[in-house]
Amino acid sequence: MNSVFADLPNTVFDVMSVLARELGAINLGQGFPDDPGPADVREKAAEALRHGYNQYPPMMGLPTLRRAIAAHYRRHQGLALDPDTEVMVTSGATEALAASLLALVSPGDEVVLFEPMYDAYLPIVRQAGGIPRFVTLRPPYFRLDAAALAQAFSERTKVVVLNNPLNPTATMFRDDDLALLATFCERFDVTAICDEVWEHVTFDGRAHRPLIGLDGMRDRTVKIGSAGKIFSLTGWKVGFVMASSPLLKVVSKAHQFLTFTTPPNLQEAVAYGLAKDEAYFLDMRARFARSRDRLSAGLTELGFRVLPSQATYFLTIDIGELGPRLGCADDVAFCQMLVREHGVAAIPISAFYAQGAVCNLVRLCFAKQDATLDAALDRLSGLM
Amino acid sequence: MNSVFADLPNTVFDVMSVLARELGAINLGQGFPDDPGPADVREKAAEALRHGYNQYPPMMGLPTLRRAIAAHYRRHQGLALDPDTEVMVTSGATEALAASLLALVSPGDEVVLFEPMYDAYLPIVRQAGGIPRFVTLRPPYFRLDAAALAQAFSERTKVVVLNNPLNPTATMFRDDDLALLATFCERFDVTAICDEVWEHVTFDGRAHRPLIGLDGMRDRTVKIGSAGKIFSLTGWKVGFVMASSPLLKVVSKAHQFLTFTTPPNLQEAVAYGLAKDEAYFLDMRARFARSRDRLSAGLTELGFRVLPSQATYFLTIDIGELGPRLGCADDVAFCQMLVREHGVAAIPISAFYAQGAVCNLVRLCFAKQDATLDAALDRLSGLM
Ligand SMILES: CSCCC(=O)C(=O)O
Ligand SMILES: CSCCC(=O)C(=O)O
Repeated sequence: MNSVFADLPNTVFDVMSVLARELGAINLGQGFPDDPGPADVREKAAEALRHGYNQYPPMMGLPTLRRAIAAHYRRHQGLALDPDTEVMVTSGATEALAASLLALVSPGDEVVLFEPMYDAYLPIVRQAGGIPRFVTLRPPYFRLDAAALAQAFSERTKVVVLNNPLNPTATMFRDDDLALLATFCERFDVTAICDEVWEHVTFDGRAHRPLIGLDGMRDRTVKIGSAGKIFSLTGWKVGFVMASSPLLKVVSKAHQFLTFTTPPNLQEAVAYGLAKDEAYFLDMRARFARSRDRLSAGLTELGFRVLPSQATYFLTIDIGELGPRLGCADDVAFCQMLVREHGVAAIPISAFYAQGAVCNLVRLCFAKQDATLDAALDRLSGLM
Repeated sequence: MNSVFADLPNTVFDVMSVLARELGAINLGQGFPDDPGPADVREKAAEALRHGYNQYPPMMGLPTLRRAIAAHYRRHQGLALDPDTEVMVTSGATEALAASLLALVSPGDEVVLFEPMYDAYLPIVRQAGGIPRFVTLRPPYFRLDAAALAQAFSERTKVVVLNNPLNPTATMFRDDDLALLATFCERFDVTAICDEVWEHVTFDGRAHRPLIGLDGMRDRTVKIGSAGKIFSLTGWKVGFVMASSPLLKVVSKAHQFLTFTTPPNLQEAVAYGLAKDEAYFLDMRARFARSRDRLSAGLTELGFRVLPSQATYFLTIDIGELGPRLGCADDVAFCQMLVREHGVAAIPISAFYAQGAVCNLVRLCFAKQDATLDAALDRLSGLM
């Protein structure tokens, strides 16, 4: 058995969702909306099941979808991608990440990871034989700083993984953060793998800035996107990888032996959806922002300390004084108590740290219908 | 970049399908049927898109599907699997294989592989740091033999990969082959990863015998199945892993970071389909057997040497004397000529060998409608 995997726990997102189902808790843990998602996109996928093609699509993805992805990112982020050589479809962003890391990391390579980080990064880096170099980002802004980057980057650095917008902190990196990272990538000849699955879920007029669009980064960035996040259909597992042709070629070699391809009916529906106009995305953001505000206001009213949320489906509460008062040693204990005694599932932020864990923050998903949020608030009122 | 992937060619199945599309060739290369697949199963999936759940299903798969898988294999192969701890759903058999190999192989472990072998095995073994030990199987029966196994197995062997029924030879291992392999697995404490995706596509009354059902193998076998193959919907990418709970636990840890999960609407439809009665499977086999016979008879009539096919979507022709006569140095050259000059795509068997390549065999997929097969035969008649 490979000890990287043999020694791992189940991912906290699934553990909490399983618990929520077992206990009948309201699930504000794992990030997924509780509405059915856009009816027209689902209908397209249903039609394709009925009358479309259900056999192997091309390994790189349906040409229609690859063209739709290129057009979408040209329109929304000003990127010029060749759909034939710079765009690939994967079975979700998780597969896109795994394929990118397995393809680009060789045993002994150093990989810079920023904490807090999504829990899928480190095991795959380790499996590839990579040596992680952690940079811990500090609240409340979780910004990059030159001194910390200088400590982490070296001649042995081959890859850096950036998640922007950042899950779980719900923050976005600023332009000068990105520019700083770009200079390090150029100086040390490093490839950036950018998990930008939250790029469309941004609030208060903020626009996502893709790292691949920065000077010098076009040919050293692998950009990862997610249709599940764009269309609030997290179960669909349709992801994208965008990179210059030489980089994408290697990533595709890993992809072809991880999943080979992705259901064509979902690909067709995503191609249709990506052509939606700006109004769709504005409305999506406005709806999630309203939900964010509703949960945030409710929590604040109950006396919780709520941190600001600029993007993603999440906000974070600081349980600094509350935890000990309720007899919880840390965020994990707090979340256990929350789900078992108060019927609300949440995610302890320490799950996003490999070292130097922060233990006073808890993440809640607000991408829910008003009634769900209100019911959760009602349950949480029992705590205060 | 990781040299395992950087140095790989594109998979021959995709290369040939891409060429076939470009050239307008009849595609008898990659293994997929050219009919739409069972309407009721597709309709179930469409309904689930409309009215079902489209968010993350559990990491291990929908409970309904896991129960359906356990019930299906109890009915068809007499296996007793606990759906809660011994069954997992993956994004196709390719992901199931990758997760199993990445979870069970550590750097330096020896892995026994039988040639000819499916092209997804070796790169993942190499990526995991495994050391392949090849056993070359010999035509016409591709049987296992004790002397060859004794050469390959050692105290360092951790995993053996068995593909049964065997693609591309379309043969099935006999009971005494399996029993022999089981004794080696037991003697050297080896885990068998069994790619049994063709288990239902068997002909002339032959029944598939799962290795996991053999004495001593229950707790040392990882069995992999494929809904795409069972329901002739190869694009769906719904696979299964079945193994004793301690083994499956480790495999699931790799799975959770390769894809995490698989679209729930397809899972629901597969659960529905797996409950089909024996008549469905008998009919499916009879239809493919008729297609096999049609292509085989047509090829024989044209003067090709056709090898017998006991299972899978494939038959093989021996181009031994034909190739050189047509100026083709080997099976690859023959297939290039076939697709470019005669408009028929096929797979050169040498693609299934890492060493000791056999260069006189070409694989054709007969899982096609009569009109497709007849049109292909018509084109092939130009060769003889
Ligand atoms: C793959 S489950 C995790 C989903 C997610 O992005 C989150 O909850 O952070
Ligand atoms: C993943 S494409 C290959 C499909 C197949 O099983 C084959 O053609 O052998």
